[in-house]
Amino acid sequence: MTQLELARSGEVSPIMQAVSTAENVAVETVREQIALGYAVIPANKGHKSLVPQGVGRIFKTKINANLGRSGSHSSIKEELEKLQFAIDAGAEFVMDLSVGKDLMEMRQAMIAASTAPLGTVPIYEALDRLDGDASKLDEEILLSVIKDQAEQGVDFMTLHAGLMNSHVEMAMKRRLGIVSRGGAIMAKWMKEKSRENPLFTRWDDIMAICRQYDVTVSLGDGLRPGCLADASDEAQFAELDSLGELVKRCRADGVQVMVEGPGHVPFDQIQMNMEREQEVCDKAPFYVLGPIVTDVAPGYDHITSSIGATAAAYYGASLLCYVTPSEHLTLPNGDDVRKGVAAHRIAAHAGDVARGLPGARDWDDEMADARGQFKWKRQFELAIDGDEAKRRYMEGKDPDAEDDDYCSMCGKDFCAMRNSQQLQDM
Amino acid sequence: MTQLELARSGEVSPIMQAVSTAENVAVETVREQIALGYAVIPANKGHKSLVPQGVGRIFKTKINANLGRSGSHSSIKEELEKLQFAIDAGAEFVMDLSVGKDLMEMRQAMIAASTAPLGTVPIYEALDRLDGDASKLDEEILLSVIKDQAEQGVDFMTLHAGLMNSHVEMAMKRRLGIVSRGGAIMAKWMKEKSRENPLFTRWDDIMAICRQYDVTVSLGDGLRPGCLADASDEAQFAELDSLGELVKRCRADGVQVMVEGPGHVPFDQIQMNMEREQEVCDKAPFYVLGPIVTDVAPGYDHITSSIGATAAAYYGASLLCYVTPSEHLTLPNGDDVRKGVAAHRIAAHAGDVARGLPGARDWDDEMADARGQFKWKRQFELAIDGDEAKRRYMEGKDPDAEDDDYCSMCGKDFCAMRNSQQLQDM
Repeated sequence: MTQLELARSGEVSPIMQAVSTAENVAVETVREQIALGYAVIPANKGHKSLVPQGVGRIFKTKINANLGRSGSHSSIKEELEKLQFAIDAGAEFVMDLSVGKDLMEMRQAMIAASTAPLGTVPIYEALDRLDGDASKLDEEILLSVIKDQAEQGVDFMTLHAGLMNSHVEMAMKRRLGIVSRGGAIMAKWMKEKSRENPLFTRWDDIMAICRQYDVTVSLGDGLRPGCLADASDEAQFAELDSLGELVKRCRADGVQVMVEGPGHVPFDQIQMNMEREQEVCDKAPFYVLGPIVTDVAPGYDHITSSIGATAAAYYGASLLCYVTPSEHLTLPNGDDVRKGVAAHRIAAHAGDVARGLPGARDWDDEMADARGQFKWKRQFELAIDGDEAKRRYMEGKDPDAEDDDYCSMCGKDFCAMRNSQQLQDM
Repeated sequence: MTQLELARSGEVSPIMQAVSTAENVAVETVREQIALGYAVIPANKGHKSLVPQGVGRIFKTKINANLGRSGSHSSIKEELEKLQFAIDAGAEFVMDLSVGKDLMEMRQAMIAASTAPLGTVPIYEALDRLDGDASKLDEEILLSVIKDQAEQGVDFMTLHAGLMNSHVEMAMKRRLGIVSRGGAIMAKWMKEKSRENPLFTRWDDIMAICRQYDVTVSLGDGLRPGCLADASDEAQFAELDSLGELVKRCRADGVQVMVEGPGHVPFDQIQMNMEREQEVCDKAPFYVLGPIVTDVAPGYDHITSSIGATAAAYYGASLLCYVTPSEHLTLPNGDDVRKGVAAHRIAAHAGDVARGLPGARDWDDEMADARGQFKWKRQFELAIDGDEAKRRYMEGKDPDAEDDDYCSMCGKDFCAMRNSQQLQDM
């Protein structure tokens, strides 16, 4: 039985218990949220090294780091290093988006090494098995990849099954068309073959595999907007309606499901987007990429994304896919991964504080206390990236200063907190 | 006459004309907004190298970069380099927050070099003239500093004149007390001397100086919250009420005025803070520091701040003070300045797009078009930091690839935009 089926049957699994403890949420609440489909715990029965993580509005907002090589770039060793970077930096979820040779081998190594739930986009491997010849793609190859990956222990899979032929026309009216890798491949195949989405036509078979291994379906938004101009358009919301239907089918089949979302969205449209997904998809956990709130900042898209992601986390998202500073330009290296994770942990936590998640602000309060008491070591321990904070602090530190009750930003005489404390003592 | 007085008299000045042209806003609208006090143009009559900038909701949201050395760190040469960095990176406003020796000399050099309006916090220099001995501070020394700086050509000055004795008690109930440098110095002096705020008691004399040189007053929020726990509290809003009264007095005296705001504020409280300032201060332009939306990310506070600043720009702020990655840790270097400026230009622009400022999204649309057409050079020209975008792009570029219709992020076969365009052609 899947976690969804267990929860519905009234049973509390060890996995639910672990999430309950980690989140400090009553186990009966966890079970109930899973049973309703408002929360998911992506946990393939075969992923032995997994530390389970809950996704849903009753839990802390989580973040996902995309990893994996493209084309000729990067080796298994490098990807394993990036995986460890991402987990050490605090990513709760990871996705392996590799394309190229030896994908099974690389994924096996990543799953074995990963304590985080690991996700994939099976169409990438399907295309690789066909040496990149998308015209040879068919239902059978997709099913065999999904089956193989499920057997390997993949915890969640992005399936662009809601993208219908009728939506593609809508997307062609856009400024930037289709910007999802999987979505574009699928749409092109559908038009070339004049056939419907192969994931959709074989959905029942996919459900059987996912149910067997308890793979959580992550319904891909192949028509997510790729620029502000395309946000919240007909194509995006037509596909969302399809995803809403697929949510029902997953739940009917006992398969855990979450829904992926945009993308590039102006700041003022984020609330509406979050509320619409929650309504159309009956509160299935929303897993968003960004949203990026402006198109003009390549090189800084971890920031454009963390801005949108904070609003998303506040208004309805449960899982934030990070974006790194290399987005739109090249594949991220280890340092980019670190920056992307930090930026999105900020977004997740700021969202949790803003929506009043019980206990979320305690972390900020502890930091404020450490700051007020000039406990620098404690500040570095508490910081989202303590190494980075310490490195900067030490750069400015006067080696002759014996006491530490100020920093070099304002200097001792002008330190507001020193003056404020003297005032307090008066 | 000041720009405010000119505008009220129905006169359109060359400075208003320049702002009208730069902003693509009808000059009569500019004049009217200045006359009402809903917009300001900080432009000291003696600042000859100035390119005037408007601050107000009818204009593009602007950003300010804080510069200046503290204590033993940094030289005039370094500060002039940072000034140029900041302006080149796109900061429309700069503040010289230097403390230490030779302040007049450094400022003279900065004003001469700066095309951006330059602001100061006069209490810093007052304290330096007293060798850091705050107990010797008095009204006369503050007035003489303000007069000297006005003569030098300072365009706007932060004056913490709304901080009253009665507010200090409120601030002492806080988790972190007073975290504004100027506010803490002022409060300590007031309590030690049992006297009222010297800037407040001599307000009419200050008005006379500001009116003579057309120095724009930036009413400092000495009680801005220094951690999430202290946000939106009694002390903050009591001071804001005082600032609202001072806005009226500035306007009555023909002096341009804007109001400074928080600080550390949870994401969900930003809208309320922006609306409250606009109401209490009768739409005087709001100049915010951040707000920072979580306390737990030292080393990344350019990001925590740009998140809050985007919401601030959307809901009511007109000028965003940048925060750099070194905030809370040390003084920023040139690279930190660059990162801080980029992060806050993102916030300003994302806010402008979200609030529907006419023409704001054109920039994004141009970038989207360049992206869709794989015009890499054009993308770098349009980018907020084109050098950084280009550097990253070139790192991933395959030197053997002759065409450029993809990037190394997804690789050629998986490039969604290539596939989408082939689909469009079908």
